[in-house]
Amino acid sequence: MMSATAASAQPRWAIVVHGGAGVIERKDLSPEQEAAYRQAMTRVTEAGAQVLERGGSALDAIQTTIELLEDDPLFNAGRGAVFTAEGRNEHDASIMDGKTLAAGAVAGVSTIRHPIALARAVMEHSPHVMLIGSGAEGFAKARGVEQVDPSYFFTERRWRSLENFAKANNLPVPAKPKVAGAPDAAQGLAHDEGKHGTVGVVALDSQGNVAAGTSTGGTTGKRWGRVGDSPIIGAGTFASNASCAVSATGTGEYFIRLTVAREVCALVEHKGLSLQAAADEVVQKKLTALGGDGGIIAVAPDGQIAWSFNTSGMYRARAAAGQPVIVGIYKDDP
Amino acid sequence: MMSATAASAQPRWAIVVHGGAGVIERKDLSPEQEAAYRQAMTRVTEAGAQVLERGGSALDAIQTTIELLEDDPLFNAGRGAVFTAEGRNEHDASIMDGKTLAAGAVAGVSTIRHPIALARAVMEHSPHVMLIGSGAEGFAKARGVEQVDPSYFFTERRWRSLENFAKANNLPVPAKPKVAGAPDAAQGLAHDEGKHGTVGVVALDSQGNVAAGTSTGGTTGKRWGRVGDSPIIGAGTFASNASCAVSATGTGEYFIRLTVAREVCALVEHKGLSLQAAADEVVQKKLTALGGDGGIIAVAPDGQIAWSFNTSGMYRARAAAGQPVIVGIYKDDP
Repeated sequence: MMSATAASAQPRWAIVVHGGAGVIERKDLSPEQEAAYRQAMTRVTEAGAQVLERGGSALDAIQTTIELLEDDPLFNAGRGAVFTAEGRNEHDASIMDGKTLAAGAVAGVSTIRHPIALARAVMEHSPHVMLIGSGAEGFAKARGVEQVDPSYFFTERRWRSLENFAKANNLPVPAKPKVAGAPDAAQGLAHDEGKHGTVGVVALDSQGNVAAGTSTGGTTGKRWGRVGDSPIIGAGTFASNASCAVSATGTGEYFIRLTVAREVCALVEHKGLSLQAAADEVVQKKLTALGGDGGIIAVAPDGQIAWSFNTSGMYRARAAAGQPVIVGIYKDDP
Repeated sequence: MMSATAASAQPRWAIVVHGGAGVIERKDLSPEQEAAYRQAMTRVTEAGAQVLERGGSALDAIQTTIELLEDDPLFNAGRGAVFTAEGRNEHDASIMDGKTLAAGAVAGVSTIRHPIALARAVMEHSPHVMLIGSGAEGFAKARGVEQVDPSYFFTERRWRSLENFAKANNLPVPAKPKVAGAPDAAQGLAHDEGKHGTVGVVALDSQGNVAAGTSTGGTTGKRWGRVGDSPIIGAGTFASNASCAVSATGTGEYFIRLTVAREVCALVEHKGLSLQAAADEVVQKKLTALGGDGGIIAVAPDGQIAWSFNTSGMYRARAAAGQPVIVGIYKDDP
């Protein structure tokens, strides 16, 4: 599925959500798994849509939606994040306001329940754009952003993924952490989408402003403080009222090298491409040519929406004023 | 000074170097200080030029030149880096190969003598683009990239800058570290350029490939694991043979929000602007309109070179095949 049809009339607001791209084929998901993902995507998109329908800002809709995704262990962000090679959960997130080009990002945090909320706090309450590691957690403490014990993020299935990764790569399996989190409601329902787990939201609000946000646990078995594209403004997240708002998911290194999110918007801004043409140019041509996998979601101030991915599936949903939520998983979903 | 004139005939190779932009006016520098900076810029640029003259790659020329700048306490990178609010030196660097779009970056490292060498090792010897903090240092150890005791980076004048910053901002002055480094040869010669200390190099080699690299100690008194634009591909550093190579210096947050390095190249690639016009469009118009300070250096595969800055000065130098090194500091330097 390379395109999401734009509404014929400009909608008052619009929202597009992704829950990661990767090897997601019909034969891989049980009916129960597919239903769980469709329900989750519908639920979180409706929550964001309600914010916009009430006249709320794109930023508020994005934070609301991503926090729900971060709380849902079906997705690789917040609770449900994958484990590093050392058996930790290290979260990255970013958010950008297309009206002001203000942006906030955090990388390598392990105690923040909602990394997207911390990214927004960085944007709104610090002179900085990007904070990393324990320093970012110190800022969270100073700002009262919710912190949790690192064990909150533990899920059994992600631990098994790490064990499998370690064995396959001849790495030591770290000591299993003590579990403090609630039982994993996604147990048996979650599908391992491979290396591309990320969540992201783009939105257009009724004031005409676009924004974008992205959150991830990174990749299973990541080492050396690896940071992907999710917290990199211009790579995983970009928003400008002059062009569009984009959130990406995929093999992050390729998205950084191509400045994927900015490039989609640059093609709209500087070459006059439609949003869908720009998305396809970057994802289907440039990303594919370089060998990267994944996809993007996008929205423009005029109400155009788009998604494009070169993997077999991407959890995705869209909604707009006067239009119902539409959820897709596989390539041939509408 | 808004422009660097391109050579009339396409040079076989070219190199442009910056040592930071900021409040650098004739009245601020003693003759000895000015001479020290001009000599340093000449020396490092000649070293990079020699690599290119011998047929070496743009990447090698960049690493050679930046390592010399990192070793020179006149500049805010490597030894000579500013201190964080906690009294540490935290270095960021990145490098990008315009031929392949390969890239490497490190942020928040405190034991790496040459952060640019580590960024290059990430690019060439890991599947990743960006590594941060102690994880990045673990990778350095595994790869044999030179590590030093954090006290190696201590310089008396940067410590005094931190003391002044802390007093002015009602922050506690951290305990002064024990000094292990050699005496600071720059003592009395270095000029505090304000918040914009960074070094960067762009080069075109005789194979026709461009590349870019950037290294910094960040900003005096930085807190919370703040990361600026220097290690962000697309913000502080970008290179593509399809357009150009750029290294930036300035108030990093604005450079991230505008994806400055990528945007200069996007205007060349997608709008067909000359390199100088693209540089001025981004720095003199977009950056200035947003309230950001600083500048960029750039080179294109056809030999065009450019710099543009909206501060009173930028330490800069350029050289090309058959042309001598030209050094500038103030706006009205050639």
